[in-house]
Amino acid sequence: MEFNLILQNLQRHIELTDEEKEIFCSSLRSKKVKRHQFLGEAGEISRYQNFVNKGCLRSYYVDENGFEHNVQFAIEDWWIGDMASFLTKKPGSLFIEALEDSDVLQLDYPSMEELYVKIPKLERFFRILLQNAFITFEQRIISTISRSAEERYLEFINKYPLFEQRLPQIHIASYLGITPEFLSKIRKKILVDSSKTLK
Amino acid sequence: MEFNLILQNLQRHIELTDEEKEIFCSSLRSKKVKRHQFLGEAGEISRYQNFVNKGCLRSYYVDENGFEHNVQFAIEDWWIGDMASFLTKKPGSLFIEALEDSDVLQLDYPSMEELYVKIPKLERFFRILLQNAFITFEQRIISTISRSAEERYLEFINKYPLFEQRLPQIHIASYLGITPEFLSKIRKKILVDSSKTLK
Repeated sequence: MEFNLILQNLQRHIELTDEEKEIFCSSLRSKKVKRHQFLGEAGEISRYQNFVNKGCLRSYYVDENGFEHNVQFAIEDWWIGDMASFLTKKPGSLFIEALEDSDVLQLDYPSMEELYVKIPKLERFFRILLQNAFITFEQRIISTISRSAEERYLEFINKYPLFEQRLPQIHIASYLGITPEFLSKIRKKILVDSSKTLK
Repeated sequence: MEFNLILQNLQRHIELTDEEKEIFCSSLRSKKVKRHQFLGEAGEISRYQNFVNKGCLRSYYVDENGFEHNVQFAIEDWWIGDMASFLTKKPGSLFIEALEDSDVLQLDYPSMEELYVKIPKLERFFRILLQNAFITFEQRIISTISRSAEERYLEFINKYPLFEQRLPQIHIASYLGITPEFLSKIRKKILVDSSKTLK
């Protein structure tokens, strides 16, 4: 039961035999994190990719002035980690923090490499996963360099309606690269604008 | 000879037999583009990934107000394309333009899928290529949301010294999400600051 969600996640892109499913699941490590606990910290080498079975997490970067900047959120059925550190085996730049009590399944690098040998089609799965992450990042870069904060906020709630409901505004502001005060202004403006449209 | 560079590019990550090299190279299409010609346009489905044998290209996004925003540059030994459109087969959002007369090798989606079947280790190669692109994008997002324009410019010339020499300032400004006038101010400030350090 613990593996239902992750096997569904895999089977969106590849077909696994029962034996392969067993090999895959036996490579996973189950981990519980309480709210505000960390799955990884900047400066450490990120050993795991994390699949969220339950809960909500964020990855963020802390700049020289101590300000936090959210890079990614993850809820059920999402993967999260410091991909750059995981892949390059260099100390990472991201903190991975649970925003709610969370259950994750972790896959470490050596197990992943072993899995690629045992089940080559997993190369395909992780390639597709990366492709999708890449596309998301590309769209985010385009948005950041070409859209106003208000447009980016509307895009965010339209694209991730579940996040909007679950995340404190302060974290959404940080993801958008604006202050919570500015986000609050934008939200008020949108409300006023839509109330005008309704009249 | 035409394939030397791309085979080296591949062999940074995977080993190919002579037969596999031949299969791979026979899947490529050679294309010449003149300066200011396009390899792809927004609104079209992007059919090719392009490997640069000679020249310099950029991908850019045009916003609702007609402003161009550079997403990526590519010179010799780089890949460029509208990855999102190529992978999803939906109309793309990027223009791919040659900034110099360029020679590229193109790989289309059906050939790529065929190659994955014939040479499964290519899955590995393109996964690594994507990983690296992903890491670059992640770092760019972190920079954009957490650094000043001056810091981002210094990061850019430090990371891509060849681009700085080859690209018009207007394109670098567009990549950084600032106006050419503002980039010009930043450059002057940096020059003044470093001349002070030299005294």
